[in-house]
Amino acid sequence: MSDTLNRLAQIIESRKLANGGDPETSYVARLFAKGDDAILKKIGEEATETVMAAKDARRDKDSAKVLYECADLWFHSLVMLAQFDLTPQQVLDELARREGISGIEEKAARKDVLRDADESNRH
Amino acid sequence: MSDTLNRLAQIIESRKLANGGDPETSYVARLFAKGDDAILKKIGEEATETVMAAKDARRDKDSAKVLYECADLWFHSLVMLAQFDLTPQQVLDELARREGISGIEEKAARKDVLRDADESNRH
Amino acid sequence: MSDTLNRLAQIIESRKLANGGDPETSYVARLFAKGDDAILKKIGEEATETVMAAKDARRDKDSAKVLYECADLWFHSLVMLAQFDLTPQQVLDELARREGISGIEEKAARKDVLRDADESNRH
Amino acid sequence: MSDTLNRLAQIIESRKLANGGDPETSYVARLFAKGDDAILKKIGEEATETVMAAKDARRDKDSAKVLYECADLWFHSLVMLAQFDLTPQQVLDELARREGISGIEEKAARKDVLRDADESNRH
Repeated sequence: MSDTLNRLAQIIESRKLANGGDPETSYVARLFAKGDDAILKKIGEEATETVMAAKDARRDKDSAKVLYECADLWFHSLVMLAQFDLTPQQVLDELARREGISGIEEKAARKDVLRDADESNRH
Repeated sequence: MSDTLNRLAQIIESRKLANGGDPETSYVARLFAKGDDAILKKIGEEATETVMAAKDARRDKDSAKVLYECADLWFHSLVMLAQFDLTPQQVLDELARREGISGIEEKAARKDVLRDADESNRH
Repeated sequence: MSDTLNRLAQIIESRKLANGGDPETSYVARLFAKGDDAILKKIGEEATETVMAAKDARRDKDSAKVLYECADLWFHSLVMLAQFDLTPQQVLDELARREGISGIEEKAARKDVLRDADESNRH
Repeated sequence: MSDTLNRLAQIIESRKLANGGDPETSYVARLFAKGDDAILKKIGEEATETVMAAKDARRDKDSAKVLYECADLWFHSLVMLAQFDLTPQQVLDELARREGISGIEEKAARKDVLRDADESNRH
């Protein structure tokens, strides 16, 4: 599972112009060539498309489109992370930190964990 | 790495009202109680906050906020996936499918893989 | 002032395919030809661009970009309204309704009006 | 028509803290007290809600919700404009500038006008 995110992050990293990425042939290299705003604009676009896909999914009783759009949203999140020299592992570490546990404590701490996860994400 | 997404998905699943989630004590259960629109609204909100955090990160030369907001965006993506009875594994499978490879072929196919990954994400 | 919104709404209306709009030559006719999702996607995009422009404006102490992006957002709002056979006048009527006044009562009612306008927009 | 936007802009202006706006009693004053990010976050939120309302409108064959959400989006646009010391008149002037006409030339120039309006909004 993790391997997919790691592998994608490596591919994306290889598309940076400094790493030989070629905007002529690579979509990701083109995003890097355009810079922050082009990448951030994609975050907004893919979020909107995800919302529309979810509305369609409920209407059509077919959730496949939600998967595709969520994949697009996460993919462009990976491009954004690379643009800021961050990795998906750091995002997962942050999520795990909020979850408030190291693996060995999980079962014992389960009830508190759940409460913590909620608290840390409450706005 | 994967364990974090799987574990979070399980915690989130346990917060569904049908699984005993309690809107009084759980933020996620409250989202489930409110339904699709409340969850989708969070996708839009967190995307906007991610974009703002990235703008601040460039200005402040401190990308930590991008991590936090990306974690929020992914966390609420997991809630949305659960709401549509989807799993993060399915999103990762879709990303791997686009990447166009099984692990063993990765090195041999590297060049084509990269091209495929680009193509499948081009809009 | 109003004339601008009315006039733009009329121009946009004339670009509907049923009214002779030509997707070959008109950007708006192309949006109508693509349908709801293409138009709604622009709402999401322009909102994101407005947010980025505002962040830049604060950094650069130059708010001109906010004007341009807000104009883009409102323009595409007009296209969306037309797509749903609504008019900007109806949006303004709704805003005036919330404001809670007919013109003649404005001064007398000023204090309550302000409170009403707040209430009606509180989420 | 214009009077609504002008009047709302004046009300909103009066809610700035420097003009005596009171965050205790006024929603708009609270937004001003929170600052840029709180206001920009509303732009993203209202755009998402507008998109969802439009999806519902198509499903329910009732476009009233699109009006309400578009009114919310424009209202918060006005708050943003005020935050950057801009006015709705300037946005309308920008839209009119793109439209490329002064009123008296409208009929004569109609064909070019439409082309100009398209060009200036093409991305």
